[in-house]
Amino acid sequence: MTGLLDGLRRIVGESYCLTEAEAMERYLVEERRLFRGNAIAVARPADTQQVAQVVALCAQLRVPVVPQGGNTGACGGGVPQAGAVVLATERLNRIRAIDTANFTMTVEAGCILADLQQAARDAGCFFPLSLGGEGSCRIGGNLSTNAGGINVLRYGNARDLMLGLEVVLPDGRIWDGLRSLRKDNTGYALRHLFVGAEGTLGIITAASLKLFPAPRERQTAFVAVTDPQAALELLNLTREITGDAANAFELLPRNGLDIGLRNMGGRDPLGERHAWYVLLELSSPRASGLRAALEEVLETALARGLVLDAAIADSETQRRELWRLREVTAGGHQHQEGGLIKHDIAVPVSQVPEMIRRGTAACEAAIPGIRVIPFGHMGDGNLHFNLVQPLGWEPQRFFAERERMNRIVHDLVHELDGSISAEHGIGLLKVDEMARYKAPLELELMQRIKEALDPLGLMNPGKVLPPPAQQR
Amino acid sequence: MTGLLDGLRRIVGESYCLTEAEAMERYLVEERRLFRGNAIAVARPADTQQVAQVVALCAQLRVPVVPQGGNTGACGGGVPQAGAVVLATERLNRIRAIDTANFTMTVEAGCILADLQQAARDAGCFFPLSLGGEGSCRIGGNLSTNAGGINVLRYGNARDLMLGLEVVLPDGRIWDGLRSLRKDNTGYALRHLFVGAEGTLGIITAASLKLFPAPRERQTAFVAVTDPQAALELLNLTREITGDAANAFELLPRNGLDIGLRNMGGRDPLGERHAWYVLLELSSPRASGLRAALEEVLETALARGLVLDAAIADSETQRRELWRLREVTAGGHQHQEGGLIKHDIAVPVSQVPEMIRRGTAACEAAIPGIRVIPFGHMGDGNLHFNLVQPLGWEPQRFFAERERMNRIVHDLVHELDGSISAEHGIGLLKVDEMARYKAPLELELMQRIKEALDPLGLMNPGKVLPPPAQQR
Repeated sequence: MTGLLDGLRRIVGESYCLTEAEAMERYLVEERRLFRGNAIAVARPADTQQVAQVVALCAQLRVPVVPQGGNTGACGGGVPQAGAVVLATERLNRIRAIDTANFTMTVEAGCILADLQQAARDAGCFFPLSLGGEGSCRIGGNLSTNAGGINVLRYGNARDLMLGLEVVLPDGRIWDGLRSLRKDNTGYALRHLFVGAEGTLGIITAASLKLFPAPRERQTAFVAVTDPQAALELLNLTREITGDAANAFELLPRNGLDIGLRNMGGRDPLGERHAWYVLLELSSPRASGLRAALEEVLETALARGLVLDAAIADSETQRRELWRLREVTAGGHQHQEGGLIKHDIAVPVSQVPEMIRRGTAACEAAIPGIRVIPFGHMGDGNLHFNLVQPLGWEPQRFFAERERMNRIVHDLVHELDGSISAEHGIGLLKVDEMARYKAPLELELMQRIKEALDPLGLMNPGKVLPPPAQQR
Repeated sequence: MTGLLDGLRRIVGESYCLTEAEAMERYLVEERRLFRGNAIAVARPADTQQVAQVVALCAQLRVPVVPQGGNTGACGGGVPQAGAVVLATERLNRIRAIDTANFTMTVEAGCILADLQQAARDAGCFFPLSLGGEGSCRIGGNLSTNAGGINVLRYGNARDLMLGLEVVLPDGRIWDGLRSLRKDNTGYALRHLFVGAEGTLGIITAASLKLFPAPRERQTAFVAVTDPQAALELLNLTREITGDAANAFELLPRNGLDIGLRNMGGRDPLGERHAWYVLLELSSPRASGLRAALEEVLETALARGLVLDAAIADSETQRRELWRLREVTAGGHQHQEGGLIKHDIAVPVSQVPEMIRRGTAACEAAIPGIRVIPFGHMGDGNLHFNLVQPLGWEPQRFFAERERMNRIVHDLVHELDGSISAEHGIGLLKVDEMARYKAPLELELMQRIKEALDPLGLMNPGKVLPPPAQQR
């Protein structure tokens, strides 16, 4: 271990090799405190070369390496186990190049997402990846978990925004796949293996990302709908009338909004109470009459009985107020209502109403008084199917039901050909679920890839893939 | 061999196991006659189960399997070597499902691309993959080669249109990855490995594909520009004014158009002759004032001296006439001008003018009188950098220069961080170029993936990857 620490200090410098408990603390826990890890050291390399040297040293000494970006992951993917070295990418935070004529930027893994959004804006472009943690999450982590967020409907996931990668491989060699090409059919798409692999196949140190023309026109509405089926029909109607102009179509249930407003403040802009809402936003990189299009959507939907009421933002301030309703729905029940069991699921968009109807009924039958709050990115078929404890329970009593409730929700997702992790990844939290729901053949293929690229099994061990014994 | 043929006949039926030279002929040659293969048999399975059985039988007997779709590939990826079985997917031609509320369709590998476009239209949607061979190429081949075409600028390559796959693995097992989800972060992105792998890792038997709202409005212009740099500025101006409305931005050189019109007929719609043209098309799935936007683009470009003249289509007939100019430029020099050396290259979009300027100069210096015809998908940075023999040469004399000309073009592409195969793939044609231009580490990673998924090396051997000995 002395050899390891001496080596790490030599590579990254004394002050960037943390070993004191207090200094390491923030790298060992994650936001929700579901997992607490431990580590020999936290290494904070300055650049790709240092990352490569740290990984090579760890490979030589057979020490596991756990890469960490902003440590904002929702599934414990960045939490280290005892005996590991945490490799924090936060000092790799340079924007290496912006090519506005190619609509690309080349950035290092430790860049904070919001900083990249700003850099794109400063260059007259738009980088669409946007999510709750954008002020502190880092692009390497976003790519390693294939982050989603609020603009996926129009622009895709982190994966879709990536053209090339630089990766430090498990043996410490650097793969330079940092191309900025829209087309490149020269062999296997290695870059796609590292996206979503949560650092288990190597460490992303830099990426070439797509930029887009900046939105010039935006129209945002907060819409009361009769039920999730009406929301689905509203989505289809929106597409029929506006084509692909919708960049956000977020479903919000009344109960989640109520809890949010109560715990985080704010007010409902509509006069009456309704059971379901949609936050609908259209955008276009040119002035193209979106307001009229939005009004046509809403009037048609009103006439068909899908929509009961709606508020359209008339200013950027009002737009932010409407988006805040989405934020309080997402955030209000997460801390102040006691026990919470979260699910990040996706089904085909056409199955969302079925998922909500059957999932809610099954959860309420299992625990009378449970508060089911399915909200989120309906346009992508992605719901955060969150369960809040009944009023008056002790949180621990509710947490004891976690396994049973996971089973109810995930069994239904599985039946509907859905995904048990739409945008949060697997990490530690869902490794057992992988073993349960993935076909053995698919796990076997993933395991073969893992062994082909990381034969020593040192890259973020224990994450994503169940142990082989559990797979068969 | 008797065991093999008996087995194949038992699986697919006597009449779908071809062994006569005449019956096999069309599966053994490819369009350009650059390669001629041979095979023990051509098996034409009816469904995924039969594909699996054929592959399992071949694995058991250690017989190579060469999958083939429409046999329209440009690089010989479907040409079999002696001793192989050709597995033709053409009978797997069912559309299994169309879900318009999910904007997806699930189709079998042998569906002809144009049939899928039509099926999408019939369902009120749009499937954007479109390319020259669409009347005969099949979607399994399109995915296996990650086909590009004329709508990539707006909709992406075949890879980007794919949500899930069903694949028969090299040992004959069936991997069901046929999900239709917009978000699914459950482990490694296996599906992306098979796209672009040209059948070397398994055989795609079905796919779930994205659909889009149908275009409602289209504006098409044939624009004379001063040079490729002006074309690049026109592209940026188009983005500035119309955002992402451009679905095609095709660069056409005068010499290619001249040869095309001479050999295939037709006329230039502009009064005067110009050195370079752009076929520019804007589209939108809703009426959004694209005509005015196009006129603003052209007027601004005219005022800046980028554009010299332009014709805008006023009807679908005129639109087809303008597109025909693109087709004759692509097609006219391919058969009737003697020797032709093709390159399918990509560079960052911002580097296209540099690529054309330096590439043309170098080719003309190497062979005075050579006709350099760089045309194509400028919006994607993808040019078909075609070289036509000098007038009066014997084709064989020109073909003898192939290696030297490849070196000139591909060395420059490499210097500009480009790709030696933008959309056509590697096949047999560019295996040596892979060995030359790919970093050894990248080839090693691909080889490890190959060995992990196809340890017997029976899937389309000799394609895509150079033999390991050549790699290091």
